[in-house]
Amino acid sequence: VTSVLITGATGFIGRGALAPLLEAGFVVHAVSSRRPLPEGPPGVHWEHSDLLDSAGPGALLERVVPTHLLHLAWYAEPGAFWQSPENLRWVAASLRLLRGFVEQGGRRAVIAGSCAEYEWKEHVRCVEDQTPCRPATLYGTCKHSLRLIAERYAEQEGLALAWGRVFFVFGPGEHPARLGGSIARALALGELAKLSEGTQVRDFLYSEDLAKAFVALLRSDVEGTVNMASGTPASVRDLAEALAAAAGRRDLLRIGARPVSPGEPAELVASVDRLRDQVGWNPDASLEQRAADTIAWWRSQLTDGDRPPALS
Amino acid sequence: VTSVLITGATGFIGRGALAPLLEAGFVVHAVSSRRPLPEGPPGVHWEHSDLLDSAGPGALLERVVPTHLLHLAWYAEPGAFWQSPENLRWVAASLRLLRGFVEQGGRRAVIAGSCAEYEWKEHVRCVEDQTPCRPATLYGTCKHSLRLIAERYAEQEGLALAWGRVFFVFGPGEHPARLGGSIARALALGELAKLSEGTQVRDFLYSEDLAKAFVALLRSDVEGTVNMASGTPASVRDLAEALAAAAGRRDLLRIGARPVSPGEPAELVASVDRLRDQVGWNPDASLEQRAADTIAWWRSQLTDGDRPPALS
Repeated sequence: VTSVLITGATGFIGRGALAPLLEAGFVVHAVSSRRPLPEGPPGVHWEHSDLLDSAGPGALLERVVPTHLLHLAWYAEPGAFWQSPENLRWVAASLRLLRGFVEQGGRRAVIAGSCAEYEWKEHVRCVEDQTPCRPATLYGTCKHSLRLIAERYAEQEGLALAWGRVFFVFGPGEHPARLGGSIARALALGELAKLSEGTQVRDFLYSEDLAKAFVALLRSDVEGTVNMASGTPASVRDLAEALAAAAGRRDLLRIGARPVSPGEPAELVASVDRLRDQVGWNPDASLEQRAADTIAWWRSQLTDGDRPPALS
Repeated sequence: VTSVLITGATGFIGRGALAPLLEAGFVVHAVSSRRPLPEGPPGVHWEHSDLLDSAGPGALLERVVPTHLLHLAWYAEPGAFWQSPENLRWVAASLRLLRGFVEQGGRRAVIAGSCAEYEWKEHVRCVEDQTPCRPATLYGTCKHSLRLIAERYAEQEGLALAWGRVFFVFGPGEHPARLGGSIARALALGELAKLSEGTQVRDFLYSEDLAKAFVALLRSDVEGTVNMASGTPASVRDLAEALAAAAGRRDLLRIGARPVSPGEPAELVASVDRLRDQVGWNPDASLEQRAADTIAWWRSQLTDGDRPPALS
């Protein structure tokens, strides 16, 4: 029997991983620090633990003894996460979790990294093991440093480890302080959706597709770093226009109404050769389809008097 | 008033830093996890804290509010430290300590790094910011990763940070499971001192000189990485012969009686330009003099019926 401990299970990416993990045959233990514990989907075992508490995951790991670990939890407050000292706590928490997992006989771990680990230039197409890692932020530095330790430790202990670098994500439940969330929410509410010129080219992946990609990576025997991305570059404007088209409210889009953030690369995209060819995963829907799914979700949340949805 | 919190204050390097810190005019707060707390030298305030306990340093830092931090503590069990998962705990503990220090308004920190952060080739003369950091061990990887985070965090928070990379150390109280300690102890006891051919060239620094170098670095305004070394390459055999000459027991030396450890570089030495020219420190005694000091210490410990000395 394979069992997985998943962290960040209530988060933007993690909540989409629960059903695919169950479908893949895992016994799923999902960690949450909330009381009362979340519920569903049926079959998921919710486990209470505060990973930031040094006493936290030890007893849980002793009880659950998972064969697999999918570690997605991190500090993710929009904007603040780039520089927050909470990043230091999450390095510490992640090391504690990884060590406890290994000491309970864990066999395979997948940890979420970030494209912020790479050196960002004006134009960069990130290729694992080729593009230099020179993170410009505390967040990127903490993820990068955690990876270095995790990989060395895994190699030494015989743990199979893969490190999935997340690029740009949009989808249901995205925080409205984030780009995709703010645009989708405004369009669904019938409000003006303001953005910059939106010429920055990125790799956008739908949150539930990213979650499925993580499950595919966990099930594979691929080790090392893997870019978790769609492989289809698109501009911020492309994303906004796809959301507006899906909402039928092209009229609400105000392109150029916000300034471009300074220091943002013009092009930051991902090589997905490894994800596609070695893990065997690629998204099965277009940006347009996923924009429609996103708008549909927001509308489903807003039917009851335009109240903003509860966000985790 | 400048006050310093020193960790590792009972260790091989740290105990030699207390008197120099007092002489430099610091109010000295020395951390120890022992009960009862150590005593002396007069003027040192011993503070109880277990840095590995997540509740540990916060309250201490709030009470002491040090302007300076000299962080030398780490897991140092001879042999075991290269691969021990305790290295992961010390990364976490160090991040907690550094964050707490910054949040209490700390101005300047010096942290002990290691030559194990550098890429070790057959012949390497380590130059800060030039020699690549590609640590081959978990210990070196953890130190390297901690430095990346600490430097980014310090830059962001306006903390003056220097990172002192320790090379090879010998001197009073060296653990007898370590090279210098085993040879010095055997010579002082009148036992055979066995070593390899000893052709490996290193940079050996006397522990109390290293401690003084750390105090000089703390008092300086130098930031970034600094090699903490003598600048005078010597072979393992040179060190053994200096100790034997100091003991007047050349006859006890058994050169070649042990195998050379595999994977050891033939030459691993340090550029000390930065320590000498920017920090303004260099050792004021020769290897021969410090070998004599080491033997004298061991003899002072062994006068009472050849009992091995109590080691911290």
